[in-house]
Amino acid sequence: MMIKAGIYGATGYTGYELVKILSRHPAVHLLFATSNAQAGQTLADIYPAAPSLSLIAPDDAPLAEADIVFLCLPHAAAAAAALDALAAGVRVIDLSADFRLKDADSYAHWYGHQHPAPDLLAEAVYGLTEFARAELPAARLVANPGCYPTSILLALQPLLCAGAVAGPIIADAKSGVSGAGRTLQHHTQFVEVADNFSPYKIGRAHRHLPEIEQQMRFWNPAAPQLIFSPHLLPVPRGILSTIYVPLQNLAGFRKPARFANTEDNLHQLYHDTYGREPFIHLLPAGQLPSLAHVTHTNRCALALTLAGSTLIITSAIDNLLKGAAGQAVQNMNVMLGIEETTGLL
Amino acid sequence: MMIKAGIYGATGYTGYELVKILSRHPAVHLLFATSNAQAGQTLADIYPAAPSLSLIAPDDAPLAEADIVFLCLPHAAAAAAALDALAAGVRVIDLSADFRLKDADSYAHWYGHQHPAPDLLAEAVYGLTEFARAELPAARLVANPGCYPTSILLALQPLLCAGAVAGPIIADAKSGVSGAGRTLQHHTQFVEVADNFSPYKIGRAHRHLPEIEQQMRFWNPAAPQLIFSPHLLPVPRGILSTIYVPLQNLAGFRKPARFANTEDNLHQLYHDTYGREPFIHLLPAGQLPSLAHVTHTNRCALALTLAGSTLIITSAIDNLLKGAAGQAVQNMNVMLGIEETTGLL
Amino acid sequence: MMIKAGIYGATGYTGYELVKILSRHPAVHLLFATSNAQAGQTLADIYPAAPSLSLIAPDDAPLAEADIVFLCLPHAAAAAAALDALAAGVRVIDLSADFRLKDADSYAHWYGHQHPAPDLLAEAVYGLTEFARAELPAARLVANPGCYPTSILLALQPLLCAGAVAGPIIADAKSGVSGAGRTLQHHTQFVEVADNFSPYKIGRAHRHLPEIEQQMRFWNPAAPQLIFSPHLLPVPRGILSTIYVPLQNLAGFRKPARFANTEDNLHQLYHDTYGREPFIHLLPAGQLPSLAHVTHTNRCALALTLAGSTLIITSAIDNLLKGAAGQAVQNMNVMLGIEETTGLL
Amino acid sequence: MMIKAGIYGATGYTGYELVKILSRHPAVHLLFATSNAQAGQTLADIYPAAPSLSLIAPDDAPLAEADIVFLCLPHAAAAAAALDALAAGVRVIDLSADFRLKDADSYAHWYGHQHPAPDLLAEAVYGLTEFARAELPAARLVANPGCYPTSILLALQPLLCAGAVAGPIIADAKSGVSGAGRTLQHHTQFVEVADNFSPYKIGRAHRHLPEIEQQMRFWNPAAPQLIFSPHLLPVPRGILSTIYVPLQNLAGFRKPARFANTEDNLHQLYHDTYGREPFIHLLPAGQLPSLAHVTHTNRCALALTLAGSTLIITSAIDNLLKGAAGQAVQNMNVMLGIEETTGLL
Repeated sequence: MMIKAGIYGATGYTGYELVKILSRHPAVHLLFATSNAQAGQTLADIYPAAPSLSLIAPDDAPLAEADIVFLCLPHAAAAAAALDALAAGVRVIDLSADFRLKDADSYAHWYGHQHPAPDLLAEAVYGLTEFARAELPAARLVANPGCYPTSILLALQPLLCAGAVAGPIIADAKSGVSGAGRTLQHHTQFVEVADNFSPYKIGRAHRHLPEIEQQMRFWNPAAPQLIFSPHLLPVPRGILSTIYVPLQNLAGFRKPARFANTEDNLHQLYHDTYGREPFIHLLPAGQLPSLAHVTHTNRCALALTLAGSTLIITSAIDNLLKGAAGQAVQNMNVMLGIEETTGLL
Repeated sequence: MMIKAGIYGATGYTGYELVKILSRHPAVHLLFATSNAQAGQTLADIYPAAPSLSLIAPDDAPLAEADIVFLCLPHAAAAAAALDALAAGVRVIDLSADFRLKDADSYAHWYGHQHPAPDLLAEAVYGLTEFARAELPAARLVANPGCYPTSILLALQPLLCAGAVAGPIIADAKSGVSGAGRTLQHHTQFVEVADNFSPYKIGRAHRHLPEIEQQMRFWNPAAPQLIFSPHLLPVPRGILSTIYVPLQNLAGFRKPARFANTEDNLHQLYHDTYGREPFIHLLPAGQLPSLAHVTHTNRCALALTLAGSTLIITSAIDNLLKGAAGQAVQNMNVMLGIEETTGLL
Repeated sequence: MMIKAGIYGATGYTGYELVKILSRHPAVHLLFATSNAQAGQTLADIYPAAPSLSLIAPDDAPLAEADIVFLCLPHAAAAAAALDALAAGVRVIDLSADFRLKDADSYAHWYGHQHPAPDLLAEAVYGLTEFARAELPAARLVANPGCYPTSILLALQPLLCAGAVAGPIIADAKSGVSGAGRTLQHHTQFVEVADNFSPYKIGRAHRHLPEIEQQMRFWNPAAPQLIFSPHLLPVPRGILSTIYVPLQNLAGFRKPARFANTEDNLHQLYHDTYGREPFIHLLPAGQLPSLAHVTHTNRCALALTLAGSTLIITSAIDNLLKGAAGQAVQNMNVMLGIEETTGLL
Repeated sequence: MMIKAGIYGATGYTGYELVKILSRHPAVHLLFATSNAQAGQTLADIYPAAPSLSLIAPDDAPLAEADIVFLCLPHAAAAAAALDALAAGVRVIDLSADFRLKDADSYAHWYGHQHPAPDLLAEAVYGLTEFARAELPAARLVANPGCYPTSILLALQPLLCAGAVAGPIIADAKSGVSGAGRTLQHHTQFVEVADNFSPYKIGRAHRHLPEIEQQMRFWNPAAPQLIFSPHLLPVPRGILSTIYVPLQNLAGFRKPARFANTEDNLHQLYHDTYGREPFIHLLPAGQLPSLAHVTHTNRCALALTLAGSTLIITSAIDNLLKGAAGQAVQNMNVMLGIEETTGLL
């Protein structure tokens, strides 16, 4: 029997990726796709290569018939839609930021308004799939992680859980332009972006910072502060994060240590964590990831480079796939007991 | 004594190029630069490499102190500003389309509203500088040509004046994104333009068509129709037009013909016209222009390729310079008796 | 039972696309992939997102075990490999130019050397799939069309067969950089291509010209000459051709004509030809194709724009898919009696 | 009287920039430009917008007539040319790496061969102009800094000299493709670079590392180690370095401290150093540099962002100008007693 899925907000870059994946997914019937501004048109009116999918107004969506809905809406709007869906007994994967932070005060601080549904925060499962498999099958509400957080958290989990981090972590991250969304803005116009490269909101100023630190501390309450520096790359899609971690206790995290060389040791630690993961590609020593390793895939490519007592982790994902729509479908598959890679290879 | 120049509409791509040229021009003092939306800011707030030039509201411009003003305004707004300037005794170079068409009905048809100042149409000098030098010194009002028209008309003038065109001309033109202006639009967003290439308004549908045909018929009343196909290139700036002209009477346009080979003959025709022009680069046989020949210069690069009885003329300019701000300053130099290349090499 | 396929020359851009398609093709087992220069390595050593496919020397290929081989080799080398394969009883799809021209003298003229296997020229089937379905099932040797020819011939077939072409046709074509192959050249370096756009070999000078004209005359012996102007676009992939056809006898090609309006008539002609084709997307009136319609698909998107008595056909394909590897697999599917779209949607 | 200058190696990206600057420089006569591979051609045969400058073989260069020569040659070849020039009494600005490292053993380690002229190492002046003005007027031999080192060292000098650095510095640097030179390589082909972004030689593996650390220790013998991570950006030109410096003793570097706020204090420190520098643009608090601030200029744009006790310095230059040819001319101007900004504004 086919899963009936709906998409709220199908005309943004993330929504369109979700349509592409779900249209080919063998276990899913795409029940509806909504748009506020373009209801009555088809997705092909907006994206030339898209299928001729009818866009309907949110109020016209046959919500009650759906098994699951994906929310590709702005923050606040997503929480409101989640309330409606849950009330109708429909499971929710929210690709906005509304249910990522557990603390309503922190949400209010970073998003500039009170949380519309604070009672749901505790229940929401943070859907970094590789580390949420135990909770996803029973989850009613999944908070799909942000794109930068996905690239950085997958890189850090083994070190944090091994207690190997000695001090502040620096994540120097670079994202393609689709990460800024499809809303018209001067700084995403072709003439401004082409031939250019720009840092923005560096240090401790970007909204993804509290999301990353929250999960870091979930893994290790003693996790240090993060310095997070996003940059805008002149490419349509892809994120590459270069992450600098001061190490301690290298010898300690395997007992007995199998290798004399610490870079080997670190590689083994990551191999233990990710060796069987279908979407995590740990590169052999001497290789480094690039966007070309991951764009148009649901993969995260990771490499480790030791420089003195600092480990440099390079981590690449496609911001629209593993960083958004791809991971959302990966979460859906686990929620529904479908083989996790279905529709994603 | 320095010429005092003002710019209306300095924050668009063309206005900014004009600021750059005039700031370095040894005979010009840039008296003012206006902006409706950004008055009170400086140009450096908009363009990071720009000088800290104060932007003032149009009503605050010291128009009466100016010797000449450049209008980088939308159509209709430009005509209104031109009326004010001329009334104040200030000469005008209008970079909008308002004074390019001589016929007010044609203007109304293509621009969707009555012409705001039809009485000035006859007086306005069409400033394709190479062919307007006789009229520019006395001109009060110059209509600076459009970017596509400049690239196409410079390519066609010798053939049209020689009566060598046998039938309909096809101009397949490709423009960088700055040609669409700085107004926010989905089709000029980085994600839509990168990796893409798009025809638009092809055939006889683009507003530059009547401007080109008007000048073609001014040079040769028997000039044929033009088919004009613009395309959007994923580059910030530059236009390359590939123009197909069916030929007749090749032997006739030089008496006595000096060469047996017609490609030589055609090359000589263009050499006679452009051999001494500082901004027209006629390429030797076997070479073809590219955008790299002309971007960030006021040049037009031309090449001739004979294919049977069809002459293919390839013509490249920088749409913001020879296609807009550069030619405007070239016109100003001729109007004011300054050496024509000043500030443009 | 799985088809066993081999690829000669898997490390070029076309070979890599073929690997990607065949690796996912449900009816094909990829038996081997060869490389002269990189035998012993894997494809992932060259393309970061590629599968870890072992590259073997051509002499080590288990040719006798294959059902079919694809040749992604330089001209002349491809013909030699075809002779070997056919001698071993293996069917051949040649993606080089070696078997496209029927006339050995023309081949010698355009490719600079005698044809290595002239006796095979008559037998080779020109694999423009939509028009080769009758011959493909029995074909031993298929000449896969060039990328520019595919985009132009699909656009012209209906008009040529309807006898509606009144005079010389102009094809102004623009291709992404992968069309130039992976061999190192200065004009395909990033710094030379970015921000640039260049015509090359325009008129009647490019090797794809005789291939296009041969097929045009096959469809209509009275077909006129072609003027063909290729240009290099700053994008990795995609071809868009803007084709200008002078028309005659518009009324005559449907009896009785159903429509008074000739643009409708022309659209009906193309609809009759392509309405049921899975890979040909005839756009509705008023829309124009762009590269975004077709990249990463096996589609050809076509639109018709009438300008006086000239029909402008805009035609877009992905040069590596419908223009090379995609069409090759489409041909294979028809040769082997597999559903034509398998592996290509 | 005009300075007579020669360029060895004029066909690379740096050599071409040097030709452009010197051709417009009012105090310089460009005496000769050499090329090994393209002697006999003109520069316009290689770069379409270049002047028709004749390229001569190095042996044909009228070295004895020159006042100064610029070496845009590979390492080792540059040292050999420097020996010849100095022997002829001609001053040298070397844009290669040959005279940047003071220690011949370090040079041998990083460049893979013995230094060809170790006796000159002590004499060579490291030409980071802002900090070499005292030595340049008498210098016979100037080692022009590397592009990455220029962007990083200008950012670090005030902190290092103030003794404010508490621990290892991380420089996450991103460079446009021209930094890799014009030699043909797969990783600089358009198809590989477009839509991509790649780290390379990160940690302590890039040849610019010892050059940077040598100068850091010259300014402060207690300077910490550097972690240096270069990345390849899909743009033709420009470098942006994001530099992370752990701070100490913030209060101490001004006595008496004027400001309570340490970000203000740090800004004042940089203002004291760079406030009057014509080519260093210290951005106001809250602004960050981008490539658009500096490409096609000789500027370095700097901004300071304090995150806890880490100072993030963002530093942007044009790798071909302030990072190579522009700084070389700036050095020449100081060497010859010409106004430092001549030819560079």
